[in-house]
Amino acid sequence: MTSSSDLEQIESRIVSLVKDFAFPHADDSIASSCRPIADMVATQAVTSSEGGKRLRALLTLDSFRAFASKDVLERDFDALLDLACAVEVFQTGALVHDDIIDDSDLRRGKPSAHRAFSTDTHSEAIGHGLGIMLGDMLATASVDIADKAASKLTYGSDVVAALLNMHREVEVGQILDLAVELNSLDDPNELVEASLNVFRWKTASYTTIAPLEFGMLAAGLSKDDARRHAVAVGLPLGLAFQLADDLLDVVGSSRNTGKPVGGDIREGKRTVLLADAINAADDGQRRELIDMWEADSRSETQVQRAIELFGQTGAIARSRNRIADLWHASKSAIDALDLSEYRKSPLVEACARFVPDIRANA
Amino acid sequence: MTSSSDLEQIESRIVSLVKDFAFPHADDSIASSCRPIADMVATQAVTSSEGGKRLRALLTLDSFRAFASKDVLERDFDALLDLACAVEVFQTGALVHDDIIDDSDLRRGKPSAHRAFSTDTHSEAIGHGLGIMLGDMLATASVDIADKAASKLTYGSDVVAALLNMHREVEVGQILDLAVELNSLDDPNELVEASLNVFRWKTASYTTIAPLEFGMLAAGLSKDDARRHAVAVGLPLGLAFQLADDLLDVVGSSRNTGKPVGGDIREGKRTVLLADAINAADDGQRRELIDMWEADSRSETQVQRAIELFGQTGAIARSRNRIADLWHASKSAIDALDLSEYRKSPLVEACARFVPDIRANA
Repeated sequence: MTSSSDLEQIESRIVSLVKDFAFPHADDSIASSCRPIADMVATQAVTSSEGGKRLRALLTLDSFRAFASKDVLERDFDALLDLACAVEVFQTGALVHDDIIDDSDLRRGKPSAHRAFSTDTHSEAIGHGLGIMLGDMLATASVDIADKAASKLTYGSDVVAALLNMHREVEVGQILDLAVELNSLDDPNELVEASLNVFRWKTASYTTIAPLEFGMLAAGLSKDDARRHAVAVGLPLGLAFQLADDLLDVVGSSRNTGKPVGGDIREGKRTVLLADAINAADDGQRRELIDMWEADSRSETQVQRAIELFGQTGAIARSRNRIADLWHASKSAIDALDLSEYRKSPLVEACARFVPDIRANA
Repeated sequence: MTSSSDLEQIESRIVSLVKDFAFPHADDSIASSCRPIADMVATQAVTSSEGGKRLRALLTLDSFRAFASKDVLERDFDALLDLACAVEVFQTGALVHDDIIDDSDLRRGKPSAHRAFSTDTHSEAIGHGLGIMLGDMLATASVDIADKAASKLTYGSDVVAALLNMHREVEVGQILDLAVELNSLDDPNELVEASLNVFRWKTASYTTIAPLEFGMLAAGLSKDDARRHAVAVGLPLGLAFQLADDLLDVVGSSRNTGKPVGGDIREGKRTVLLADAINAADDGQRRELIDMWEADSRSETQVQRAIELFGQTGAIARSRNRIADLWHASKSAIDALDLSEYRKSPLVEACARFVPDIRANA
């Protein structure tokens, strides 16, 4: 694994791919009076693409390394790099839409795309419209990048279909996420089930399952084998990743810079942590939690009190156990793969990036 | 040309394709508490797909008939029907996003998707979020349908790339359309140029150019030839179609049922008609028009007055001339194609559907 150099290659490739796609092409006729806005959107496409951890692109490359023969690895690495970037470009587009849906002002420490557009055009309506379109453009770009990459791969025939399935799964996940907002908080078991279900669709789909699947497909595994193995390893890993992310929001340290502790609570997000807390709470605590989450907003005192209750009810410990169990399941699935030790252990390392706490405590 | 039976086949195929794609698949695990919302979105996907004139799908089929050999026509017609439907599914998704951007309550006489969702969930925010996601899902579906269709076509290799280019062009067009809203009305020549530019990207791209191109590609024309011919015929045709549509909004009769006359004026849309009127107006009329369009809204009296001014300034006559010239250019481009008369004349008929007035007056 040469992640740091992978990371550099991914970064520069993403910028060049997004520029190629989002800026008007040389032979595109754009009326001169409209060009400033077209250029503003293209520039924002690049800005919005910056600053990710690129975990998904890295996993795509590492999955390919684990499964590809030496020949295919050398011949197809460059095309695979594009495919890995397609996942990141998809994510950027999904986050642009996500920020509109959640009405978020910030993304990765900078103004969210629709907010930046609203400021620049002095119009909320036009800013939102341009944001919806930027998200659409990046979604189209991700398929376009993958389609071109697939045509260069030795084993590229099922790649576009897998990528489109990933798009669909995340879109379903976003719909389920909105559905959870409408559910009652009175049935915590239902909330746990629904939240894990959202994680499967909205997070695991494109964070771990699809990157593993793309690497395997490009290495020549059959469509069915790639799917089966990618789900076996990637589903528990993706769930663990999202649980760890939610946990970090509550017990976070300087490691998760830029994100104030308790952000999810402040937003009233319905998490597995909350469900576990409601589930294990006594009647008074349960009422307290439900009242807080049913209110329109939560004060800083309430955020601190909620974190306290997450600890007291054992929800935090429960989450750590959930993460450990899921990581164990993911590792067992890797163990069951027909891979030499030489290929298996870098894959375990690559997957461990998604659960940093586990790795630190291991 | 067997359009009426084409139309029936297109209608039923669209419904079955959208159902296949939008409803959770049999092996999809959806938490039971979230299923009602997932089903609501899937049902709306079908509702939003109903009621179009299917001009784009029909043109795709007719372009294929004009260019394909008898063998290919018979062998590939079924796959081509799917490809034709992919254009319609794309349009439905684009209109769902368009209605959010324009904050439109109605679409084809029914509540727009995001408005229906807002009503059903009793939440504007969730309704908008679900609307954005439905648009995303339908965009993904259109590529998925085309990708599967392309794999069955004898000449399918360039079809997905052409479809993705169509997606990109319409997204650029939507961005340019928003940009025009920000332009000054003081330079009518600039407004004409910008409006025609929006028509090229937002309308001609997927209404005429892409359907012609898909039919030609599937018939076996080279990528470059298909593109060149499709633009030569489809660009003037698509511009004429949009000009005719805008004209119908002003001089419309019972033929354009469901649409109240002057809707574009009421919304303050910046059209070529408006630009032509401002261009030919005297100082007083010009001031009157600009004041009306710079206001937040227009009264019924003002709408009638604007229509009167469009007539008095000669803008309506100018538009009719523009449409006739563009239709002539499109027909000349068809004439220049290397096609037998037997194939040429049904193609002219198919294209004439996009400019019904011309046909009636011919």
